[in-house]
Amino acid sequence: MRVYLAGPDVFLPAAEARAAMLKSVCTRHGLQGVSPLDALDDEPEAWSNLPEARRIALRNEAHISRSAALIANLTPFRGPSADVGTVFEIGYMRALGRPVFGWSNSATPFTERTRAFLGAAAQRSPDGAWQDHEGMLIEAFGLSDNLMIDAAIQSSGGEFFTSAVEDASRWTDLAAFQKCVAATARKLLSSPSPLEGEGWGEG
Amino acid sequence: MRVYLAGPDVFLPAAEARAAMLKSVCTRHGLQGVSPLDALDDEPEAWSNLPEARRIALRNEAHISRSAALIANLTPFRGPSADVGTVFEIGYMRALGRPVFGWSNSATPFTERTRAFLGAAAQRSPDGAWQDHEGMLIEAFGLSDNLMIDAAIQSSGGEFFTSAVEDASRWTDLAAFQKCVAATARKLLSSPSPLEGEGWGEG
Repeated sequence: MRVYLAGPDVFLPAAEARAAMLKSVCTRHGLQGVSPLDALDDEPEAWSNLPEARRIALRNEAHISRSAALIANLTPFRGPSADVGTVFEIGYMRALGRPVFGWSNSATPFTERTRAFLGAAAQRSPDGAWQDHEGMLIEAFGLSDNLMIDAAIQSSGGEFFTSAVEDASRWTDLAAFQKCVAATARKLLSSPSPLEGEGWGEG
Repeated sequence: MRVYLAGPDVFLPAAEARAAMLKSVCTRHGLQGVSPLDALDDEPEAWSNLPEARRIALRNEAHISRSAALIANLTPFRGPSADVGTVFEIGYMRALGRPVFGWSNSATPFTERTRAFLGAAAQRSPDGAWQDHEGMLIEAFGLSDNLMIDAAIQSSGGEFFTSAVEDASRWTDLAAFQKCVAATARKLLSSPSPLEGEGWGEG
């Protein structure tokens, strides 16, 4: 079964090698990892006239639509939250009603992470809630990221795995990813799935 | 027709008043603005047992599913990109195949904004591309945010409006929002819509 591997890993210097590494873990668990870098077998002719950014986006949307589940690298990216491209893709898969799994190489809760990012700008308001220098609320639900992300993973039947990893190895350590792939395989392969026979998700 | 108003506006100190203001602009254009803060008329009994964060997320997903279009406030939020909760919702609506419109009170292109955020950590790699201190690529497609966002808006038939607004008024200035609502109304109301009669989007 196809599983889409969302994440900012595509921005890494050796992105192709990284994709191959993530796919090899999927293969060991009986899943076919699909990378955002993969070509589309049947890319429509008309797309060749589109700017590269549009083509990449349409290709990724097509990959997601053909996958049985999505596994997202939610390691914080240039701010307290996950990469927005990855989060877009979670929303897309969530609307398709299929399982979304997440993993992150930060185990620091979202509220703490946001406060650390804001530094002295994070203040308590008179009612005790945390807010930033513009008075905007800091979410404090004890979650791993914005509530739409954590909730989508849970509501979809997925799981979120975090691991406290040192900065130097946060784009190489695969412990949380491996747990995440194992859980995805259990979900997709161990029980009869109501999704089978719908024409997607087949390798 | 219902239009979902996604954005970090829900984190503002006077979030209810803000929602009322955004809705009043929609009303003037013949649209019914739906805020993430709005109650769901027919919220399932079972949700009362869920944690608040899950209930909020399910409610927002339901609001989006019942809306004919989505208008997203993509003003940068705690980093170079838009709020991730908002971006999740764009992905969700995009998968439903309905129009997504965006507006932002920053007119600075995404590449420049990311470089400003990273400061001295942004460097040119030997091949001339911009990258951060971890060697991770900085997107340079001349877009307003991550390519999945810009491309989704365009592919869905929506539009993205930006306005160069001073920091002090970036959560109050509504010039870009007003243009965005006007464009959404033109899209939804001026031509016979293939979406009519599907049971959603009616006020």
